[in-house]
Amino acid sequence: MSVVKQIPRHFLSIRDITREELLRLVERSAEIKTAYKANYAARKPVALSGLEGQNVAMLFSKRSTRTRISVESATTCLGGNSLFLGKDDIQLGVNECMYDTARVISSMTSGIVARVNSYNDVATLAKHSSTPVINGLCDTFHPLQALADLLTIKETFGTFDNLKVAWVGDVNNVLHDMLIACAKLGIGAAVAKPKDVSIRTDILALIKEAAKEKNTKIEFKDDPKEAVKNADIVVTDTWVSMGQEAEKEQRLKQFAGYQVTEQIMELANKSGKFMHCMPRHPEEVTDEVFYGPRSLVFQEAENRKWTTIAALEAFFVNRGNIL
Amino acid sequence: MSVVKQIPRHFLSIRDITREELLRLVERSAEIKTAYKANYAARKPVALSGLEGQNVAMLFSKRSTRTRISVESATTCLGGNSLFLGKDDIQLGVNECMYDTARVISSMTSGIVARVNSYNDVATLAKHSSTPVINGLCDTFHPLQALADLLTIKETFGTFDNLKVAWVGDVNNVLHDMLIACAKLGIGAAVAKPKDVSIRTDILALIKEAAKEKNTKIEFKDDPKEAVKNADIVVTDTWVSMGQEAEKEQRLKQFAGYQVTEQIMELANKSGKFMHCMPRHPEEVTDEVFYGPRSLVFQEAENRKWTTIAALEAFFVNRGNIL
Amino acid sequence: MSVVKQIPRHFLSIRDITREELLRLVERSAEIKTAYKANYAARKPVALSGLEGQNVAMLFSKRSTRTRISVESATTCLGGNSLFLGKDDIQLGVNECMYDTARVISSMTSGIVARVNSYNDVATLAKHSSTPVINGLCDTFHPLQALADLLTIKETFGTFDNLKVAWVGDVNNVLHDMLIACAKLGIGAAVAKPKDVSIRTDILALIKEAAKEKNTKIEFKDDPKEAVKNADIVVTDTWVSMGQEAEKEQRLKQFAGYQVTEQIMELANKSGKFMHCMPRHPEEVTDEVFYGPRSLVFQEAENRKWTTIAALEAFFVNRGNIL
Repeated sequence: MSVVKQIPRHFLSIRDITREELLRLVERSAEIKTAYKANYAARKPVALSGLEGQNVAMLFSKRSTRTRISVESATTCLGGNSLFLGKDDIQLGVNECMYDTARVISSMTSGIVARVNSYNDVATLAKHSSTPVINGLCDTFHPLQALADLLTIKETFGTFDNLKVAWVGDVNNVLHDMLIACAKLGIGAAVAKPKDVSIRTDILALIKEAAKEKNTKIEFKDDPKEAVKNADIVVTDTWVSMGQEAEKEQRLKQFAGYQVTEQIMELANKSGKFMHCMPRHPEEVTDEVFYGPRSLVFQEAENRKWTTIAALEAFFVNRGNIL
Repeated sequence: MSVVKQIPRHFLSIRDITREELLRLVERSAEIKTAYKANYAARKPVALSGLEGQNVAMLFSKRSTRTRISVESATTCLGGNSLFLGKDDIQLGVNECMYDTARVISSMTSGIVARVNSYNDVATLAKHSSTPVINGLCDTFHPLQALADLLTIKETFGTFDNLKVAWVGDVNNVLHDMLIACAKLGIGAAVAKPKDVSIRTDILALIKEAAKEKNTKIEFKDDPKEAVKNADIVVTDTWVSMGQEAEKEQRLKQFAGYQVTEQIMELANKSGKFMHCMPRHPEEVTDEVFYGPRSLVFQEAENRKWTTIAALEAFFVNRGNIL
Repeated sequence: MSVVKQIPRHFLSIRDITREELLRLVERSAEIKTAYKANYAARKPVALSGLEGQNVAMLFSKRSTRTRISVESATTCLGGNSLFLGKDDIQLGVNECMYDTARVISSMTSGIVARVNSYNDVATLAKHSSTPVINGLCDTFHPLQALADLLTIKETFGTFDNLKVAWVGDVNNVLHDMLIACAKLGIGAAVAKPKDVSIRTDILALIKEAAKEKNTKIEFKDDPKEAVKNADIVVTDTWVSMGQEAEKEQRLKQFAGYQVTEQIMELANKSGKFMHCMPRHPEEVTDEVFYGPRSLVFQEAENRKWTTIAALEAFFVNRGNIL
């Protein structure tokens, strides 16, 4: 499987990197985490390097605690400065067209992390940017979350071989990149979703393409109990996102039976773990599971930082040369 | 007097440090100020070190110019990056519970400075944080202001011995930590407050405990004229805080006679000085005093920076080992 | 022509620097740009130095993408930290008088870049600040834009001699400093503006004073076609600024015939170029011109960064010693 390397090379989805590059990014994240923690414990300087005197523009149309903090702290670790532009600082496409904004901002910075609403916006930004663009989250993809999840899986199971992930809940941006990642690495995946929730055909095509090399099995089920059978990792995400509280009652009905409970977890493998990208609401997972011994959620959140350092290093410092 | 040292060790009030540690923080602040100014004048590099490649999370629920600028510039001086999270970036406890927020943010940073509304919030944050938390101001304590005030007093009088502070006005967060600090150091204090304004019994207990070692005299009076007698430093603060403008008329009545005027200052010692933590409103102090030759207010404000560097160094770099 | 050098020395307008200093700032900007780009291409560290461990306060009452990003990235390049204070962080003169704010902020930082509404505000700030103040844009001046425009002109024509600039449109802050700059350097300028738009007499006096040394010709015309004759550079700016959308219809009538089109550009010199400080609206210039081969607009925007580095170095690092 080959991936076209443009100059500048952007990272909008796990789709954009090869299986080998994905493995290397996870491995590099682990190296960075180990080195940083050892230095911190020994009270030695903990900075990496590569972005000294350089700026990373953070274009954030929507609030996002984990992405904000992980990108900003990752930039610091690499010696650079992050330039946070929230929706009050810049309104993409409002006072100025996206083309002008992309050209101007990219001419003054060494890279852009965009957390925008639509994939179309981040893709337009990337198309006209003279520096690399990393997708910090959009309606379609969330590659930095997928990297953090993979590092967490690797740390927990020591391998990506012979594993099964079960996703229980809505079909969203996090799931898209997680499935592409699983498909590339040969991690089996089963998705339990309500019948009236469907996955986009173009995304399905990306997953199928990614699954070819390792012949990865990706399944879709109606019943959470079916999906979690033999799963090593059970994952869910919130169904009621920020700003959608109005639809909450309807969503609760639609996702009845989809809350991840101890009973659901009992159906997974004995060593089965639980993951969630946060912020979390009680509808989708009980306190018992979320704060229980099977939960990897805080390790997963912390890993957003280490994997983001690896991603920024790969795309902003090494300019897309990952291997 | 001993203070329990937890790991991580937090700094939520002057209560949390011993007399010796308090003295050392003031002394260290003076050392830093002198070294920095000498280097700046000589056009040599002025950075200290210890936070290279590291991030300090600033959780600010409320606007706060002096705290914001002093913490951010102090972090820079130590080589670190401050990550400012205002109320539009993160709403503590709204989209996510405090426990989750505390664990996630602390896992990605080397320390947190919180400027929240209630003491309960900063205490909860500290309880669950894996990195040290410094209280940047809450409804009950303001330890960073107390440090700045002590440095200003030390610079002006050369000693903490045989001094008397008179506070004229409301009972608030700034006063609480100032009285604990005075009590620890043996600086006598007299508080003039309206009869219908009382001090919390739990705070009074803290002050009494702190006063034991040096047998410090802390008095409460109804009459400003009584309180300022023989005072070396007269202090006040605004009575009408941000957002409380509605109650202004009632407050003006309640605090009639509490404005610090030249007449009030005449009753203090001849070498008596005036302090105010700002922002200042004319109700509580006349222009004549605030901008007059007895005023230390701008030195006091600048000292917020130098003492904050010492506090960040002590808790974030040296992880609570102050002596 | 001499310019009074105060301590601290501020930079509120091109008015505040001599012809030789202006030339040196442009020359230094070019040196920095060349060095930075060479290092970046060679993957060597790209930081300059001088602001290590130091803070630049950015006081921004109004949104401003280019100024924000250029000042923040310039500060990073010099090793410093920029402390962004937007209108939600600090409201100049609202909760605290300008005098107090100026003294407090300047006591904790090494320099202030102010992007305020009125010249009076930035001048008051400068008057009471103990550190240098750079005007990042106000209603009357925009010196950092003038520097970027001069660098762009120098890069394009190799010289400032025997050139003519034609401004087509409104009389505003950008034009004021551009005319003072042209006058100082001997660049002829013709301004086409509607009859009912006038230039302030005090600004005209500044321009005339600046024009003396090189006997520079500065003309005012009613007809854009007249103004652009023999022009080497045609410049315009938006007539309908942020927040003034209500007056749009009236402005369109007032500026009928002032849109810079290919027909207008044909009347300039054959090698004539187009400049615009952005953000741009289609009323004042056609897509054909703005995105066409004569346009220097993106180079001009990028040059905001390089010239701001030179300005910060001159005023904050070298404290006003430019030559």
